[in-house]
Amino acid sequence: MFDHLHWERESSRYGDPLILFKTRFDRLRHPQSGKSFERLILESVDWVNCVAINTDGQLVMVRQFRFGAASTTLETPGGMVDPGEDSETAIRRELIEETGFVGGTWSYLGAVQPNPAIHDHLCHHWLGVDVELDGAPKNEGGEFIQVELHSPAQVMHAIQAGEIQHALALSVLSRVYNIWATPTVDR
Amino acid sequence: MFDHLHWERESSRYGDPLILFKTRFDRLRHPQSGKSFERLILESVDWVNCVAINTDGQLVMVRQFRFGAASTTLETPGGMVDPGEDSETAIRRELIEETGFVGGTWSYLGAVQPNPAIHDHLCHHWLGVDVELDGAPKNEGGEFIQVELHSPAQVMHAIQAGEIQHALALSVLSRVYNIWATPTVDR
Repeated sequence: MFDHLHWERESSRYGDPLILFKTRFDRLRHPQSGKSFERLILESVDWVNCVAINTDGQLVMVRQFRFGAASTTLETPGGMVDPGEDSETAIRRELIEETGFVGGTWSYLGAVQPNPAIHDHLCHHWLGVDVELDGAPKNEGGEFIQVELHSPAQVMHAIQAGEIQHALALSVLSRVYNIWATPTVDR
Repeated sequence: MFDHLHWERESSRYGDPLILFKTRFDRLRHPQSGKSFERLILESVDWVNCVAINTDGQLVMVRQFRFGAASTTLETPGGMVDPGEDSETAIRRELIEETGFVGGTWSYLGAVQPNPAIHDHLCHHWLGVDVELDGAPKNEGGEFIQVELHSPAQVMHAIQAGEIQHALALSVLSRVYNIWATPTVDR
């Protein structure tokens, strides 16, 4: 389907690795003009994030300094899927590492493409209900994360106030809650 | 606020440019351990996308081959803000370039961070109502885009069916429609 839109890849080369990504440059042929163009692809393992709700109905959230934004953000927990790991194992591991919360009942909420123009991987969304605090977070030395519990109403308020702006955090939250109160246009 | 989470930047260096991004490597000091770590930042102009609705109430959508995903995607129109351009001018320009639609009444829907861990820029969301076809799209030679008109119900169906997976397209659509029918958890 949509074969007429397909760009044939003529060649690929790898650039310098970028800590989180392998950089690949593909040379591809325009389906109509036949001209060739070089395009950037950031290769990575899949990402994963979650809405994690404790036994009191509070959301387990993380606050940390983010290097791209150069500011502190409030987000849902998440991270990267280790090679060979399935995404449920990954999100449960990341939740323990970042927050110290364990257990709960987990449901898969689907996946999004962080940006299909450049990323070759997905971000998987999970819902964990009735997670419980087991001990201190097990952060690696390269992270510094503050764990916070917020009621759903507080999280909705933080979204409306622009305090939560991470597209992938908003994406997983939107699978669980109606995060934008009023549709702008009638369907 | 949250100064205790702040990582002080000790130095920055630029890596090779990546077509769409400048790559910056910051060396930052962990606020607690004092150890220093190198982190990747992808610098870019802001991005912009929109829900564009024509005078018949149909959404103007774009289908194209995406190099990261290596497949064809259905998305909302969008692109990059030119240096010195405001985001409304940018989205109206991008809509013309990608689809040939012009005019309409425009409302700002807010911005998201594509990923604050690595990106230093925002994606601005716009709503354009009553846009009209003015002529052929004015794609640059490096793009090949199929313009499609879909009813809101068709777009909602495409989302539920997993045909629209681009996180930033879903993000702008979620500001206009309740894209996920049923909340998973009661508030």
